[in-house]
Amino acid sequence: MKYPKGSRHHKSSTKQPNYKQPTQFGNRGMTLEKELNETNKFYLETNQAVIHKKPTPIQVVQVDYPKRSAAVIKEAYYQQPSTTDYNGIYKGKYIDFEAKQTNNKTSLPFSNIHEHQVQHMRKVEEHGGISFFIIRFKALSETFFLPIRQFIKVWDQQFEGNRKSLPYQFIKENGHIIPFTLQKKVDYLTIIDRVYFNGGDKDESRSQKP
Amino acid sequence: MKYPKGSRHHKSSTKQPNYKQPTQFGNRGMTLEKELNETNKFYLETNQAVIHKKPTPIQVVQVDYPKRSAAVIKEAYYQQPSTTDYNGIYKGKYIDFEAKQTNNKTSLPFSNIHEHQVQHMRKVEEHGGISFFIIRFKALSETFFLPIRQFIKVWDQQFEGNRKSLPYQFIKENGHIIPFTLQKKVDYLTIIDRVYFNGGDKDESRSQKP
Repeated sequence: MKYPKGSRHHKSSTKQPNYKQPTQFGNRGMTLEKELNETNKFYLETNQAVIHKKPTPIQVVQVDYPKRSAAVIKEAYYQQPSTTDYNGIYKGKYIDFEAKQTNNKTSLPFSNIHEHQVQHMRKVEEHGGISFFIIRFKALSETFFLPIRQFIKVWDQQFEGNRKSLPYQFIKENGHIIPFTLQKKVDYLTIIDRVYFNGGDKDESRSQKP
Repeated sequence: MKYPKGSRHHKSSTKQPNYKQPTQFGNRGMTLEKELNETNKFYLETNQAVIHKKPTPIQVVQVDYPKRSAAVIKEAYYQQPSTTDYNGIYKGKYIDFEAKQTNNKTSLPFSNIHEHQVQHMRKVEEHGGISFFIIRFKALSETFFLPIRQFIKVWDQQFEGNRKSLPYQFIKENGHIIPFTLQKKVDYLTIIDRVYFNGGDKDESRSQKP
């Protein structure tokens, strides 16, 4: 039983929302997303950090307003997020990240990452925030923390006609394995502590401007 | 309550998405929201801050996946936000706020503010972020910046049986009038400079990295 609190309260509907397939895209990353939500909840409850997943942006086209009951959205579409999925605050620092997982064993394809998201993450770092990717290789059961400034070294090359994916080897060499514990299934704050607050083992990850 | 687009059998999708009335709640504050979005866009384009409105949380119940076209949400409901509407980063600081407007001339009713939002804002401040309300009195054409620590002085009293609204007079005495300019219709960073950065830097040409 992995998620003891997994059942949620549903307002005014006997039908079970299909949390496992909320979007075409989200579906691919659901396990990681669940574990991150759980971890963030633990961080919040233990007062370590205030970090939340943003709602999925949805373009609403048609809404019914039945009398004496809640508005019902009858037609809507998933939109592409303009920023990242997660943000919040940790030790006074602004935290902003995107989580991706892949079945691929040798690289993370760029197909599911958008330039405006990367631009957003660059800007966050410029303004003194901590921005990074959390990348899970499902087949290898490994989850990495990769600072945005490492990520863009490969990302920017694609525009010069180079590969359209992030090699596993690059991530391994420039990122940090995120530890797993029962309460903190994706314990990325441990990495932030090491890399940004205590002078990490990979100095190039530091991003703080004076 | 008036929902002009609430007619029942509004079938079919040549219809423009109704950006002006995405939610029951949002409708009340739409002018302020638009002005804030514009202001945030200006802050972003001039590289002063990276602050975005979060998407409205929507609980998706039923989705169709037509072949060769985008997923269509057929049944969904607006959810209550668990945090605030806006967050981001400014001068290295985490920014987190909620915007409310009222037609009332003497107070802001608490009816549209939720305890979990206030808790969230308290926590943000505890962790070193800057958290506040932006409150517009439409009839008076005045928009105020009220730090969360001021807000909770009145908020907490309601649980002792006191009033369930924030008096205009209190806001005026403990908040800050937000200036309006053509490009920055709700120029709250000016207030943050003054209140949190001791006068702020007048240097508008902050270093812009490539």
